[in-house]
Amino acid sequence: MDTIRWEEGKLKIIDQTKLPTEEIILDIENIEDCRRAIKNLQVRGAPAIGDAAAFGMVLGLKEIQAENFEDFYEAFLENKRFLSSSRPTAVNLFWALDRMEDVVLKNAEMTLPEIRCLLEKEAMNIAEEDAATCRKIGENGAALLRDGMSILTHCNAGRLATARYGTALAPVYVAEEQGKRIHVYADETRPLLQGARLTAYELKEAGVDVTVITDSMAAYVMKNMRVDFVIVGCDRVAANGDTANKIGTYGVALLAKAHGIPFYVAGPFSTIDMDTPTGREILIEERPPEEITHGFGKRTVPVGVEVLNPAFDVTDHALITGFITEKGIICPPYKEGFEAALRGMKRGNERC
Amino acid sequence: MDTIRWEEGKLKIIDQTKLPTEEIILDIENIEDCRRAIKNLQVRGAPAIGDAAAFGMVLGLKEIQAENFEDFYEAFLENKRFLSSSRPTAVNLFWALDRMEDVVLKNAEMTLPEIRCLLEKEAMNIAEEDAATCRKIGENGAALLRDGMSILTHCNAGRLATARYGTALAPVYVAEEQGKRIHVYADETRPLLQGARLTAYELKEAGVDVTVITDSMAAYVMKNMRVDFVIVGCDRVAANGDTANKIGTYGVALLAKAHGIPFYVAGPFSTIDMDTPTGREILIEERPPEEITHGFGKRTVPVGVEVLNPAFDVTDHALITGFITEKGIICPPYKEGFEAALRGMKRGNERC
Repeated sequence: MDTIRWEEGKLKIIDQTKLPTEEIILDIENIEDCRRAIKNLQVRGAPAIGDAAAFGMVLGLKEIQAENFEDFYEAFLENKRFLSSSRPTAVNLFWALDRMEDVVLKNAEMTLPEIRCLLEKEAMNIAEEDAATCRKIGENGAALLRDGMSILTHCNAGRLATARYGTALAPVYVAEEQGKRIHVYADETRPLLQGARLTAYELKEAGVDVTVITDSMAAYVMKNMRVDFVIVGCDRVAANGDTANKIGTYGVALLAKAHGIPFYVAGPFSTIDMDTPTGREILIEERPPEEITHGFGKRTVPVGVEVLNPAFDVTDHALITGFITEKGIICPPYKEGFEAALRGMKRGNERC
Repeated sequence: MDTIRWEEGKLKIIDQTKLPTEEIILDIENIEDCRRAIKNLQVRGAPAIGDAAAFGMVLGLKEIQAENFEDFYEAFLENKRFLSSSRPTAVNLFWALDRMEDVVLKNAEMTLPEIRCLLEKEAMNIAEEDAATCRKIGENGAALLRDGMSILTHCNAGRLATARYGTALAPVYVAEEQGKRIHVYADETRPLLQGARLTAYELKEAGVDVTVITDSMAAYVMKNMRVDFVIVGCDRVAANGDTANKIGTYGVALLAKAHGIPFYVAGPFSTIDMDTPTGREILIEERPPEEITHGFGKRTVPVGVEVLNPAFDVTDHALITGFITEKGIICPPYKEGFEAALRGMKRGNERC
């Protein structure tokens, strides 16, 4: 089952809030339901959010009754703003929405039915490219991995977070295809347990050895077990390499450094936001307190006690060994590395 | 409500597995129920386990029918072994049981009814001394704290973990008595959430400002909020200062070091095990996988996926700024500091 599928004008997603106990496919038929699915994390993971938002724009077309381009474009922008407001941190959402808008602007001379058709094609392209990009990330990252190695990962940046393969887990899947056995330690990733629920689920389905640990065990595992690499995904990478990812990633990066374990971030170039100079400028989404106080279907924090719930943190670029991207592995200094890769220069690093 | 109370030959404890949603007092009337309460964490926290075990030995006397000292002592040792097998890591359990055995051995010439009476008195002494010791720890630690400061703590080493005041939280309670306002960041402490359930509960009851965070937020809070000190409790301290405490403590110590935040361990001298040279010799309890896979009444890990569940980890002495004890604050080098304090030499450190 693909994370995201476009079928006869409907967006089909697997409801990630219900995994691993229930495998429910949602049929999303309008833009409101699409926004809700993104906001409630039924679809999550930076690349998958971008894919879903692009299809959300296509679904939103059904409600646009415009007869001329100006009215059409105005309604289109209204829909774009509506989806933009779903989640603030992952940049792929905005990147995908901008790509959709570019289709409208570049084809202003076409008929409205033609533009509608091109938009649907573009959304399908975005999802297809996502899958191809993840495959490339997997191939580039798999070069790091030898048979019998172990990685530790945080949150879920696997196939459930993308159209296919994933980002942080793509190197594992490709390495396994190459006949290497890789062991994965999956941080359970409080508050929403994407590691325990999703990473463990998809790795087990794929036949990859996985051990779930609480986030608080990462240091213990790094010290007492074999961990060759930490590989995580990313929600937004600033131009200098500072990386926003699931809350807890920054701590894992510090622990990896303390144990001398290379710490790689895997993601598509669409996650690199050259317009954001450093991590300080990245807006961090604060999510509802109930995710902390009622984590497991049961109240675990006394009534009236304050909690924090930042969904992400920022890992300083100095803690990151390298970025595994579809354009190769990018080593420090990152700004120069990103710019060179964007200009199409082959980096060719096998590791940093 | 005290954590532990001895009333008319019964041990009354607050069931810590039910907090914060239910406040249930358990009446424990025999040694089997006492062992079960320790094993199932209905009573937990290194000092409180010692107190409970001492009373457990008193409860066990009821089943000893011996007519002479040899038979009595044999049955007593049988009970001691039974309670010893409840939890392997916290040394206070063994320390309290040894104290009880010493009473028997030192009074072998007394009548059995006299020995029984002395044992009950010794258990009451252990609990009383625990409370007095915690008060001293509080006074010594409060000297570190100024009005408006914030500390971060992991797990629960408060009044619920001891007969009164606690260890890591005792400095906070005493500081508040002294009119200083202290803010506490409480790691929720997976898997059993002693931070969210117990630390938040007792601090709120006491009117202390507390914010619950997931374990994965500790690094974020250290970087973005004010954290003046990390203070944690301990389950066993080796002679060189290596410290076993709740899983996750080692990671917090590494994060504190990375942020330049002093990391103190608070505990009574009964937790310092001079017979264990280093942390490598400390046996770490592995608890049932269900604590990870079925967090709070709900399955969160797919069926068939492996998990780890070490209950403790060991923090290297080099990461510990100092120990807050009833005999003063002990600074490195620890072996010499512990030995001097045990010889009754006043250390007089106000901080390390």
